Amino acid sequence: MAGPNGFTLEATDSDARAGILHTPHGDVPTPAFMPVATQGSVKALDPADLEGLGAKIVLGNAYHLYLRPGDEVIKSLGGLHSFMAWPHPILTDSGGFQGFSLQHLREITQDAIVFKSHLDGSIHELTPEAAIRHQESIGADIIMPLDVCAPTGVGRDEVENALEMTSRWAVRCREAASRSDQMLFGIVQGGSFPDLRKRSAEFLISLDFPGYAIGGVSVGESKDEMYQATHVTAALLPSKSPRYLMGVGSPEDLVEAVAAGIDMFDCALPTRIARNGALFTPDGRVNVYTAPFRYRDQPVQAGCDCYTCRTFPAAYLHHLFRAKELLAYRLATIHNLRFVLRLMEEMRSAVLDGTFEDYRKAFHRSFVPPDQERRHSQKRKWLKAQGRPEVSERDTDTSGE
Amino acid sequence: MAGPNGFTLEATDSDARAGILHTPHGDVPTPAFMPVATQGSVKALDPADLEGLGAKIVLGNAYHLYLRPGDEVIKSLGGLHSFMAWPHPILTDSGGFQGFSLQHLREITQDAIVFKSHLDGSIHELTPEAAIRHQESIGADIIMPLDVCAPTGVGRDEVENALEMTSRWAVRCREAASRSDQMLFGIVQGGSFPDLRKRSAEFLISLDFPGYAIGGVSVGESKDEMYQATHVTAALLPSKSPRYLMGVGSPEDLVEAVAAGIDMFDCALPTRIARNGALFTPDGRVNVYTAPFRYRDQPVQAGCDCYTCRTFPAAYLHHLFRAKELLAYRLATIHNLRFVLRLMEEMRSAVLDGTFEDYRKAFHRSFVPPDQERRHSQKRKWLKAQGRPEVSERDTDTSGE
Repeated sequence: MAGPNGFTLEATDSDARAGILHTPHGDVPTPAFMPVATQGSVKALDPADLEGLGAKIVLGNAYHLYLRPGDEVIKSLGGLHSFMAWPHPILTDSGGFQGFSLQHLREITQDAIVFKSHLDGSIHELTPEAAIRHQESIGADIIMPLDVCAPTGVGRDEVENALEMTSRWAVRCREAASRSDQMLFGIVQGGSFPDLRKRSAEFLISLDFPGYAIGGVSVGESKDEMYQATHVTAALLPSKSPRYLMGVGSPEDLVEAVAAGIDMFDCALPTRIARNGALFTPDGRVNVYTAPFRYRDQPVQAGCDCYTCRTFPAAYLHHLFRAKELLAYRLATIHNLRFVLRLMEEMRSAVLDGTFEDYRKAFHRSFVPPDQERRHSQKRKWLKAQGRPEVSERDTDTSGE
Repeated sequence: MAGPNGFTLEATDSDARAGILHTPHGDVPTPAFMPVATQGSVKALDPADLEGLGAKIVLGNAYHLYLRPGDEVIKSLGGLHSFMAWPHPILTDSGGFQGFSLQHLREITQDAIVFKSHLDGSIHELTPEAAIRHQESIGADIIMPLDVCAPTGVGRDEVENALEMTSRWAVRCREAASRSDQMLFGIVQGGSFPDLRKRSAEFLISLDFPGYAIGGVSVGESKDEMYQATHVTAALLPSKSPRYLMGVGSPEDLVEAVAAGIDMFDCALPTRIARNGALFTPDGRVNVYTAPFRYRDQPVQAGCDCYTCRTFPAAYLHHLFRAKELLAYRLATIHNLRFVLRLMEEMRSAVLDGTFEDYRKAFHRSFVPPDQERRHSQKRKWLKAQGRPEVSERDTDTSGE
């Protein structure tokens, strides 16, 4: 049965949790991964694909959608669900993270994040109230407050300032929110400082949000710092409420964050690296663009239940990437999203069966994450190719992901 | 029952025909449109999409596939059907047309078309025997001889030379062809000269091919010239054999060519213009990129049975094109291919019912083709953007279509 906050906690296994998130557009079994549809489309996929992959909820970005096509377009089409033909749950991010990541940020005042549009250079002031208004207008099931995210490496003062601003804006967002069919989550900031995480979480809990997000992670910090901040913060949050770790989504991070008690995730990484030919396997990432795949007559991942692996030899994907055929991006995205969504399904089963720790160990025995240095260098290379500074795995660019 | 040439003529209605093409990978009801998969992929679509659209046969280009991924890759993967996971009929073109269209053509000798690869600058001599060897190696159901195609606007001498070369090469291709499970068609050349078309057709018929293609059309000539050449040539061909009009595929041309007695078509136009936002409707083309579609809450074509029209408001396609989302190309391609494939299905039914002339008239009453001058200017603009000279609707570029 749904609690008043729209979440039912079904089982725990140590800190890992299995639950159900209830929304007006349907239930979402947790832990859940939300594919990223920044501009109202999970890149290269259609809604039938997403249903086939087992996605139950997707994430859109209200700031991007406000700039294009505009709230009034989406509203006149009956809201974001109708517009993108996704009749299932949607969460929208507010645009706060874009204040951290977009090159087009102008300034952050006490009242607003001021952006210069990447589309036409126009200036937009995003106040907490406007962030709620945009999100109420397009009508996602779960909406996010405007928050301020401090980059990694800055001092405690800056992290504290971001936290305090986030707290004040959380109050304003809560007051501005008027739709009873939407859940507005709180976002915990506080960087890598456990006492600041505690201060932020306690303040938000005092406001009694129906769900809590952990922000300010996956912003350039080391994996250990990220895991610690996640663990510390998750432990502060009420067990009855859903917990959403923003911008995290490599397979190894998903496993560790579920172990820490997180219920919801979004990340552009699985879809973005897919479009570069990097595909997940139980042993780690492989890149089908590379020479060893030229004659590979086996699927990318033997036994994988995704359409791509059930249908094509890896050599065909290799060819499609080499020939820059559009189908390459679609097939690779299908595989990576299915890999991540299946991982979530398996973790959920393991929690329900009380075997999560075994699952976690087995996963790490097999899955070798890319070396962090290599990972960062790949990321820098990719961002450089896009003309952007290094930031994070979250949707940071003008085009979305 | 299949004739020895793999074709059963089921019905005629004036000159229009309905039949069945028999191949080792299945039957193809005709008239049939073959979506273009130059490099082994119909751009932006997967095989399940194509099946859902009602495609029964696709076209690949043996010259492109020889350059990349290479015959030996496709062969080691079990042939083109396995490689691209398309277990249905395939026709491959030889590369002769690329001798007409590619910027990388070096020369045409008595023995071969000499190309410089667009991939690595290497020189490749394509003899008639090599064209057959490549096509036998990758294993399509229907293969094409190496032919020589004269551009429009050249004198009778050049057209005649191309024809004579094509005839001599047809003999060599026929002698080189050794696989009994493949049908090698003959290609009629002769440009807009009825007596040359007659000479070419009679020579090829004396060699008794299991099917005949009409080449040297859709190479820049006017629609009237193209219709006339089609009509004249179709009338010369044996009624028991399938007739394939190469490189033709705008809706209005398909209707006129079926009226002239053509059974098979291929063309990159429906898929190429889709990727520019130009979509077919019963009234003609519309471009969803344009402002009137911004708020359009109806599908692109009311009542269309394609996934795109059944699922999305036109405003969503407009947004996807504006935002350069990959899904735009897929959804637009699905619509245009379904439009063309449904047109073929409807023409076939009309022939079987003896109502083809009514169908043809009703089609033309509603469908307004783009003005030829506007069409040519759009084409020039598109080719210029690709850095290429104007040529034709056939697959002319280095990347395929």
